[in-house]
Amino acid sequence: MAVDELSTTAPHDDAAWDELDEEEQLRRMRHSAAHILAEAVLEMFPKAKYAIGPTIENGFYYDFELPRPLTPDDLVNLERRMKRTVKRNVPIEGEWIPKAQARAIFQDQPYKLELIENLDGELVGHFTHAKFEDLCRGGHTERTGQVGAFKLTHTAGAYWRGDEANAMLQRVYGVLFRTQDDLAQYVQAREEAERRDHRRLGRDLDLFSTHEQYGPGLIYWHPKGGRIRNEIENAWRNEHFDAGYEIVHTPHVGRSDLWETSGHLDFYAENMYPSMDFEGGDYYLKPMNCPFHIQIYKNSKRSYRELPMRLAEMGTVYRYERSGVLHGMMRVRGFTQDDAHIICTADQVENEIVRVVEFVLHLLRLFGFEEFEASLSTRPEKSVGESERWDQAEQVLQHALDRAELAYIIDEGGGAFYGPKIDIHLKDALGRKWQCSTVQFDFNLPERFQMTYVGEDGSDHQPFMIHRALLGSLERFFAILLEHYGGAFPLWLAPIQAVVIPITDRHLTFAATLKDELKNARIRVEVDDSGERMGNKIRRAQLQKIPYMLVIGDREADTEQVSVRQRDGTDLGAMSLTDLVDRLVTERIDRNQQVSEP
Amino acid sequence: MAVDELSTTAPHDDAAWDELDEEEQLRRMRHSAAHILAEAVLEMFPKAKYAIGPTIENGFYYDFELPRPLTPDDLVNLERRMKRTVKRNVPIEGEWIPKAQARAIFQDQPYKLELIENLDGELVGHFTHAKFEDLCRGGHTERTGQVGAFKLTHTAGAYWRGDEANAMLQRVYGVLFRTQDDLAQYVQAREEAERRDHRRLGRDLDLFSTHEQYGPGLIYWHPKGGRIRNEIENAWRNEHFDAGYEIVHTPHVGRSDLWETSGHLDFYAENMYPSMDFEGGDYYLKPMNCPFHIQIYKNSKRSYRELPMRLAEMGTVYRYERSGVLHGMMRVRGFTQDDAHIICTADQVENEIVRVVEFVLHLLRLFGFEEFEASLSTRPEKSVGESERWDQAEQVLQHALDRAELAYIIDEGGGAFYGPKIDIHLKDALGRKWQCSTVQFDFNLPERFQMTYVGEDGSDHQPFMIHRALLGSLERFFAILLEHYGGAFPLWLAPIQAVVIPITDRHLTFAATLKDELKNARIRVEVDDSGERMGNKIRRAQLQKIPYMLVIGDREADTEQVSVRQRDGTDLGAMSLTDLVDRLVTERIDRNQQVSEP
Repeated sequence: MAVDELSTTAPHDDAAWDELDEEEQLRRMRHSAAHILAEAVLEMFPKAKYAIGPTIENGFYYDFELPRPLTPDDLVNLERRMKRTVKRNVPIEGEWIPKAQARAIFQDQPYKLELIENLDGELVGHFTHAKFEDLCRGGHTERTGQVGAFKLTHTAGAYWRGDEANAMLQRVYGVLFRTQDDLAQYVQAREEAERRDHRRLGRDLDLFSTHEQYGPGLIYWHPKGGRIRNEIENAWRNEHFDAGYEIVHTPHVGRSDLWETSGHLDFYAENMYPSMDFEGGDYYLKPMNCPFHIQIYKNSKRSYRELPMRLAEMGTVYRYERSGVLHGMMRVRGFTQDDAHIICTADQVENEIVRVVEFVLHLLRLFGFEEFEASLSTRPEKSVGESERWDQAEQVLQHALDRAELAYIIDEGGGAFYGPKIDIHLKDALGRKWQCSTVQFDFNLPERFQMTYVGEDGSDHQPFMIHRALLGSLERFFAILLEHYGGAFPLWLAPIQAVVIPITDRHLTFAATLKDELKNARIRVEVDDSGERMGNKIRRAQLQKIPYMLVIGDREADTEQVSVRQRDGTDLGAMSLTDLVDRLVTERIDRNQQVSEP
Repeated sequence: MAVDELSTTAPHDDAAWDELDEEEQLRRMRHSAAHILAEAVLEMFPKAKYAIGPTIENGFYYDFELPRPLTPDDLVNLERRMKRTVKRNVPIEGEWIPKAQARAIFQDQPYKLELIENLDGELVGHFTHAKFEDLCRGGHTERTGQVGAFKLTHTAGAYWRGDEANAMLQRVYGVLFRTQDDLAQYVQAREEAERRDHRRLGRDLDLFSTHEQYGPGLIYWHPKGGRIRNEIENAWRNEHFDAGYEIVHTPHVGRSDLWETSGHLDFYAENMYPSMDFEGGDYYLKPMNCPFHIQIYKNSKRSYRELPMRLAEMGTVYRYERSGVLHGMMRVRGFTQDDAHIICTADQVENEIVRVVEFVLHLLRLFGFEEFEASLSTRPEKSVGESERWDQAEQVLQHALDRAELAYIIDEGGGAFYGPKIDIHLKDALGRKWQCSTVQFDFNLPERFQMTYVGEDGSDHQPFMIHRALLGSLERFFAILLEHYGGAFPLWLAPIQAVVIPITDRHLTFAATLKDELKNARIRVEVDDSGERMGNKIRRAQLQKIPYMLVIGDREADTEQVSVRQRDGTDLGAMSLTDLVDRLVTERIDRNQQVSEP
């Protein structure tokens, strides 16, 4: 933060501009733009008090105490003033000055005075350009003309020093890039991300809702969201059965004894919903499925012949998250983990991990993702479990990543205390990375629950246990998918796959026939019998991102054909019912298609 | 109970035996057998204290205070003694006697003395046969030779007068029927029911478990149970989509505000798990899904054009049941309701109810049930909602039952305070009736939650709301299904559909080929590579009730055929792989087949 920055390095870096790397240049451009912003604000509001103005990712901000709240028009005005300063291309200069001198300069600026008090040493940095003066440790462009392309984006309230007990200041945010093109690209990407915000799409496409008053962070899946979830779960189940998993179902609550043995009450209680007390016992909503799967494993004496055992569950877990961090479906209090536990012998571990890594990629590709990165987190300083097992596990994880030809970084010591892990990140259509999948050894729970199997030698052994979630949280994965496709889901996931648009009510009979034909082929189809004009019907279908619009008028009814349009505007012309059904059925089966433009 | 019986009618009924209806005759036979039992016990244990001995469904019992616990051998001995008394065919005689005389007769029998004290009036009934005397209001056969065929079945502890503060007595149970054939039939049916007990089958077939220490009444579905559940849910979902339902998913917890508005906290709290208190609010596990579905309905302003809306969910609910009444999967604390809410206009109600009733029968037939009965429960004295709506609803329910040609009884005034309902009972393979399905109007929640839709007239109306569950609780339905089939599920539900039995290890390669072929056709198949003898492998497959056993030896491997056996022992001879796959796939599709013998 700015306060720390002020206290350290010299007020002027003597390095020549051209010798700085691009990143440092960009940082300096953003820092200088913050000064230029403050100058503009002081011009507009001579009585303004200015606080701090650091660089941030993609830009900068500056905090002010102002006589009135800033409006969007003010930002336009400020931007114009800033551009004038840039055009004047005045030099930016800095020097060390004694605190006493600084106090005199900033005598009407209480925030600056407070900063001066908190700085170590007798000298402080002092930067100027034109008539503007600031308290600053430096790191600037040489002249105001060098700051590149910027835009003020918005304002927000911010407490001085982030403390609620202090005054609320107005923070003005700006973004800044080297060139106008870079800026335009960034702004466009941000607008696209906003257009694709899953909370907005969830509302516009009627997919889900939350109801704060009945509990924040709890998701209500609406019919259309439910259709998509159903397709995701069906695919997930079929793929898991094919991959040799068995699906189990376990309760959502368990008594404290279970969570004491598992260690959750000792180490995880603050993330759990509080207890329900009755019949002399405390019951807790499950934050994880593991202890339940272990009970199923332990329900019989197990033999090496039964291993590997792969127990999977779409298990809904509940975790306490502060309401401040809740975010749509991305961060919630109740979510459905696509959880599985693989319990196996030492000999089987490698093959199992390789299979899991291949399975992750296969499953994520099914949903249209194509680029992946991984990280491998190894043994931390504090850990449980035998060294030998850690070594084997880490080797196996690395080997699996190599075999899958997956790019990865190694996070030395970044594993959990109970075992090393692989995290796999997917890249979405906007180039953003999301960590969904995790494959994690657990040397803790098999010990705590005394899990054993009878080996070929007739004696008891402790099995290896691997946690894995591929989609992670179904809710979060759904949100990622929604943003990835911008709501324009591929056919197999689209809640409504086709809408029949009769041009007039005369065509309703043929519309009904068409609907029945498609329903028989299990195509999810609706008829728009709203009586509105065709143009409106098409616009509405496009807004709902329905993949196919089937327009029927006199000609179509006479020839028993349909005019087929796609949601991106492509006109596929007239088609017979048979051809149409064939096309849709084929496209539905071919899940793994390109992401279409929303 | 016996105490009440003693206080009322005359000690001897003068009606001639032949004039009594069969039911009264049977009741008297059972009552006399209870006396004969008491006589036998007093012979064996002269110091025994005898208490009361009423008739019950299918038989009788008698409670005794005895010097030692009875053994199974004692029951055989008692039965022999009873049969001697029957053979002697002595008369049974009764008369009214003064209490003083009764006290003298029963001076050593404290339970009888206590009964005498508690009887009104000055006379009590006194019955004798041979040397045996009892305090009794009568209703007996004329002679001991008339009591029919009986059998003592078991003993159990029972508190005197059912009060834990009193002495624990030994209760001896007997079953009694008119003829030896009737008795044999009953005993066989009971043994069959015991063999089919879902708790026993659940354990033997490794389908599910409960774990008392982590919470009684909570079901853990094992892999094989999970396979069956998956098939049930798949069928359920597909049928619901086809029937015009939409599937939603809602949270398992909600804040008290929701349960206050719904009225659950006022009227249902004792059936709910206790609250989880945090962030200044109480959260409760949901005992029902309705309030959540209502939130989805209320999430937008609704138009008559959107109705009927049919929202369905496999919603897992939690209810507090006393641990004493918990019973396997039949009565639990956490269960998955196949819940749906139909929200519609007055004009749509009839059609919707008719559809639901037809849908119930269709769905239950899919699972192999063929006989149904219904009951229609009408307006109780205390109720909410307009009379007009009640009348319409009751008429509609009756009409739907008539149209479905379903036998039903009318339970006048038996409806819930919030609406009339239909319950549908299915008959299982043992002739037992189970109520699973319910179709219920609700005039309460639409009012409490102020549900509306905009009608064609542009103004707000209150919709009709219908709750319905077809399978009821998935757990309970699973238990019924398990007992109905005695674990020998039809092919589509069987967790393992076929097992390949190689005669020796030489045939493992062909076994693997066969397995792959079947897996490609999505047949659930295992190879028994245990190395045991063929006879053992077949026995094990039969115990696991696997529909098909595919035996392969030299001849089969050479000719690429398989010898096919069914679990009932039928030998289908040799078959090519193609024929085998055809047969299995066809049988899997044809779900609605006969119940095969277990």
